[in-house]
Amino acid sequence: MSEQPAAMPKPKKSVALSGVVAGNTALCTVGRTGNDLHYRGYDILDVAETCEFEEIAHLLIHGKLPNRAEVTAYKQKLHGLRNPPAGVLAALELLPKSTHPMDVMRTGCSVLGAVAPESPQPTAAEARDIADRLTASFGSMLCYWHHFANHGRRIGLDAPEDSIGGHFLRLLNGTAPSAEWVRAMHTSLILYAEHEFNASTFAARVIAGTGSDIYSAVTGAIGALRGPKHGGANEVALEVQQRYATPDVAEADIVQRLTRKEIVIGFGHPVYTLSDPRNVIIKGVARRLAERAGDMTLYNVAERIESALWREKQMFPNLDWYSAVSYHMLGIPTAMFTPIFVISRVTGWAAHVIEQREDGKIIRPSANYTGPENLTFVPIEERK
Amino acid sequence: MSEQPAAMPKPKKSVALSGVVAGNTALCTVGRTGNDLHYRGYDILDVAETCEFEEIAHLLIHGKLPNRAEVTAYKQKLHGLRNPPAGVLAALELLPKSTHPMDVMRTGCSVLGAVAPESPQPTAAEARDIADRLTASFGSMLCYWHHFANHGRRIGLDAPEDSIGGHFLRLLNGTAPSAEWVRAMHTSLILYAEHEFNASTFAARVIAGTGSDIYSAVTGAIGALRGPKHGGANEVALEVQQRYATPDVAEADIVQRLTRKEIVIGFGHPVYTLSDPRNVIIKGVARRLAERAGDMTLYNVAERIESALWREKQMFPNLDWYSAVSYHMLGIPTAMFTPIFVISRVTGWAAHVIEQREDGKIIRPSANYTGPENLTFVPIEERK
Repeated sequence: MSEQPAAMPKPKKSVALSGVVAGNTALCTVGRTGNDLHYRGYDILDVAETCEFEEIAHLLIHGKLPNRAEVTAYKQKLHGLRNPPAGVLAALELLPKSTHPMDVMRTGCSVLGAVAPESPQPTAAEARDIADRLTASFGSMLCYWHHFANHGRRIGLDAPEDSIGGHFLRLLNGTAPSAEWVRAMHTSLILYAEHEFNASTFAARVIAGTGSDIYSAVTGAIGALRGPKHGGANEVALEVQQRYATPDVAEADIVQRLTRKEIVIGFGHPVYTLSDPRNVIIKGVARRLAERAGDMTLYNVAERIESALWREKQMFPNLDWYSAVSYHMLGIPTAMFTPIFVISRVTGWAAHVIEQREDGKIIRPSANYTGPENLTFVPIEERK
Repeated sequence: MSEQPAAMPKPKKSVALSGVVAGNTALCTVGRTGNDLHYRGYDILDVAETCEFEEIAHLLIHGKLPNRAEVTAYKQKLHGLRNPPAGVLAALELLPKSTHPMDVMRTGCSVLGAVAPESPQPTAAEARDIADRLTASFGSMLCYWHHFANHGRRIGLDAPEDSIGGHFLRLLNGTAPSAEWVRAMHTSLILYAEHEFNASTFAARVIAGTGSDIYSAVTGAIGALRGPKHGGANEVALEVQQRYATPDVAEADIVQRLTRKEIVIGFGHPVYTLSDPRNVIIKGVARRLAERAGDMTLYNVAERIESALWREKQMFPNLDWYSAVSYHMLGIPTAMFTPIFVISRVTGWAAHVIEQREDGKIIRPSANYTGPENLTFVPIEERK
């Protein structure tokens, strides 16, 4: 965690390989000036509120910002890929209500890779098709399992909504989402789509580097994103915010916790030093959703904690902090926050897998050995 | 690939992060003298033919070479963990005959993690219990799926054999394996059990570094091992050997291919420079199995190719080369070679996951950006 903003990133003690170049990418730059983010050269501030998520998925997976005709065709393609094969749905039905939703995503991806595998020698075009299929169908898998496990209902996966985010909200709630909610999903999914060599993306590249299939890489990335130090942070952020009935109570307690050197999840970042550029955008989304709902409590608590952390520790909120508020205002169950991250980030993961394949390298670092040297082998009958 | 043996390892062009320290380990050293391998300080040459696999699993997962009473208790514990839950078997039944067996392993692991999850704040003891369960049940998953998908039979998973390797051969063939075959499995599983920061183990550590569960880490590692540049190599090695009816034909063709700069899978290594210390051991296993079977053809072809590659290119065989011969002589279908690698290597993966958790670091390298800079955003209606 960066406690004092500085102009340039510096290695953090809690991060291994920090600052070590592990490969090339043309996909993303993070925090070069301390608080900027670019996808394939485009500033996140330019695209987050003007583009639909499908434009950014196309940029990441297919390499260019689509024009109107291209994005229309792309959305139709994605629409046609929403339904997972019957074998995937049957496997999801085996997972009990108590299953961690990220285990549902991980298993759904693995089963899809088993029943609709990639070719042994795939072209980039085939990998892009699979990336599109995963992007289009992860929301279906999540909501299908959710309704089956909780209510024993096999929901239909068709819906008139033409966007990934709109389709997800429709399947979740069974009703048509408002235009404002769909727009909030576009922005959120865009903000979570790509972030250079973060841990889950790096896991995907390590797996892809052995020549393995794209499903294996994405399955592994889901496993990495599941961790509370990575994708799980937005769920913990909401738990923090929901502890408090008022901003005053929140501030008093957080200041207390800071004196005990407690870490507040949702603040600081291993790469950004000045601020997380995504925060200002998602904070606006959260505020508008709260205003429209006529319930500012959670937003006001979150904002007061933001002020307190800056004043006391010069720590800034990262994307997870107000994403938690936004998703909660959209009526999304907390356990689905990280799975939604999957629906978005799979676009970045897939683009990195394709890039790693072009690179052709296996990723195999060294270790510093700290164990015993040259132990004398003792036959089993003589061992203590 | 090392074409000229040297005393010390040097970075290879096709390997990213080669020689870069990505963390600490007390589990393994590889190739410090150019051709040695130690597990927790024990020389592989001391343990590979004298120990049972369960002793080495105990060494890696539980930290010590067990005495007679400990290994007896450990084998009983593993025996009791052979049966996966019904939900896992039901999921395996959904995977068609055409499924890549590594996709079966990956999916079986993911489903087990969904239906019998690790605690959110696991102790090392809990992680070790899960590691034991995976080690004991991966062979059951593989053989259960194999017989169901190919013959529609739900096999029983109990067997009198008291070892992982013996149990696997019994489930595969439905008959009691000979003592010699069981011993060959012990040695093979020991040789494949651990290899420092290889790509699959490193994938497991990247996933574990986010605080994720051990099942996610092992699921990701299986995905990495699936790649033909990693665990898939022993299957390709057999394909090479089976191309030839006689050693003379093999030598003539291989020399031809070398002049065309073709790479022969099963030779060379990114870390060993002088030789793979495991080769001499597995070569002995392969020879004894071939002699006992009264069929030396495959072994003689493999040995002649070994001689030719050393003479022409000073390249040495790695563990995969004679593992291919050995597994073939044991009657194991080629598509199961890499899954058997999983049954063994899960012991090393699990030990690394536990170690990475003690370390407490997230693994997050940097990238070298090669893409476009500061592109001007064009609104969609104006895009080309």
